[in-house]
Amino acid sequence: MFRTKRISSRDNADFRELKKLCASVHARRRSGRVILDGMHLIESYTRRFGSPEAIVVSETGQGHAEIARYLEDRPEIAALILADALFTELATVDASAGILAVVGLPHGVKDPDPSADAVLLDGVQDPGNLGSILRTAAAAGFGQVLLSTDCARAWSPKTLRAGMGAHFSLDIHENRDLPEFLAGCRGRSIATAPDAALELYALDPADLVRPVAWVFGSEGQGVRPEVSVAASLRVRIPMPGRVESLNVGAAAAVCLFETARRRAGGIALATPGASC
Amino acid sequence: MFRTKRISSRDNADFRELKKLCASVHARRRSGRVILDGMHLIESYTRRFGSPEAIVVSETGQGHAEIARYLEDRPEIAALILADALFTELATVDASAGILAVVGLPHGVKDPDPSADAVLLDGVQDPGNLGSILRTAAAAGFGQVLLSTDCARAWSPKTLRAGMGAHFSLDIHENRDLPEFLAGCRGRSIATAPDAALELYALDPADLVRPVAWVFGSEGQGVRPEVSVAASLRVRIPMPGRVESLNVGAAAAVCLFETARRRAGGIALATPGASC
Repeated sequence: MFRTKRISSRDNADFRELKKLCASVHARRRSGRVILDGMHLIESYTRRFGSPEAIVVSETGQGHAEIARYLEDRPEIAALILADALFTELATVDASAGILAVVGLPHGVKDPDPSADAVLLDGVQDPGNLGSILRTAAAAGFGQVLLSTDCARAWSPKTLRAGMGAHFSLDIHENRDLPEFLAGCRGRSIATAPDAALELYALDPADLVRPVAWVFGSEGQGVRPEVSVAASLRVRIPMPGRVESLNVGAAAAVCLFETARRRAGGIALATPGASC
Repeated sequence: MFRTKRISSRDNADFRELKKLCASVHARRRSGRVILDGMHLIESYTRRFGSPEAIVVSETGQGHAEIARYLEDRPEIAALILADALFTELATVDASAGILAVVGLPHGVKDPDPSADAVLLDGVQDPGNLGSILRTAAAAGFGQVLLSTDCARAWSPKTLRAGMGAHFSLDIHENRDLPEFLAGCRGRSIATAPDAALELYALDPADLVRPVAWVFGSEGQGVRPEVSVAASLRVRIPMPGRVESLNVGAAAAVCLFETARRRAGGIALATPGASC
């Protein structure tokens, strides 16, 4: 059986420590820890990194089949069972999940790899957009993401939630100097720019051979000029409609999946009726 | 000069009426009105529908060149100038914009058109996702959007903000019976489904000839079975990465822009190095 400890008092030292971690960005950063809210995130983490440091379950959550099975399968995990009222005080995004985990921040100990595909984000400040782009990057087969210093925090509860576990399939490098990475890049780097002459679909197949670094910018301002000029190409997404601007998450999805489509041989095979 | 009225008292009847409209979904719905926050939304509205019923400007906002020019160009608009403290009490999304407009809800008086391209959303509940999809639909050249009854409200301040003006390039039909529309559809209808055998890029060009109705589902559950079976095709987006799920806004961007790419002749021209 797993080691459990029941807590029903607000004065309990473990509870007070947990509450600090959940409530305070600074407490999490100081301790190098991250809070994962809900079974989906916790399972994604566990698949890549193994058991969390600690699991916190509400009394009601303990009765959920999925949570009970997870804990039974991992007797090595220290589990804190909290009275529902205490759990509600902790839960950072979705109290109804009934489970959260404390894990060490997966370090970007290694430096970004200039020989691998990358997604670079310049000032993407909305955590929902950031999480969605991380998910898109992981789904499209990109393995690393670099964030400028003014991006939303990658490991905040909101970004984690929007990322739906993509965080654990990626090497995420925060607070990076994007022009510096672009200068050392081994392949093409491509920034989106609404006024670029080159259209996405006119990219030469050679431009999309691994490694490629895609650069997307902030909602309001796009990619900063000093970052854009450091990329080898600038492209725009042609838009047939009357509205000519996309949410940055939508723009990233179009560009990254166009890259995946081309690499899968979509061009050569996409004759009428053919499967590609 | 435009007709202005200065208000500095909370007891002013116009101010109290405005405050009700800004604060209450029900008050807006009862009166058939919508609040537009910020210059960008207001200009998008004006381009399509002409002058708003009323414009509300903060004292500070009155000094912004963009706002002053807008008002000077439209002397027919009744403008209320509010003391900054009063304006801050009203502003629904972004108080710093310094301007908001009261407009009549653009009615979906006409019925959805079964002979025109359409985007159908089944239970998309996040206003940010909904707004982003409206923006994507308008940019990709789709003219009408149908929402199931359990979608987020299309005309809420959050959805309007995320839509960035796309609302005014679209016919938006809320609270619709999606299977009923699909049954009467004159062209192909295509629902996304993660377990579909058919891949997006294997769609026959004939499947994407106008009109096409695309169907996207809720974050958690995707397109409901009863809606999915009413579509003529089900497709999945092939994902080379380890994460195999996309935010619904990202999935819609991939599918709608793949449609636009194909229609622009992308297939025929997309030989290596060619512009398409």
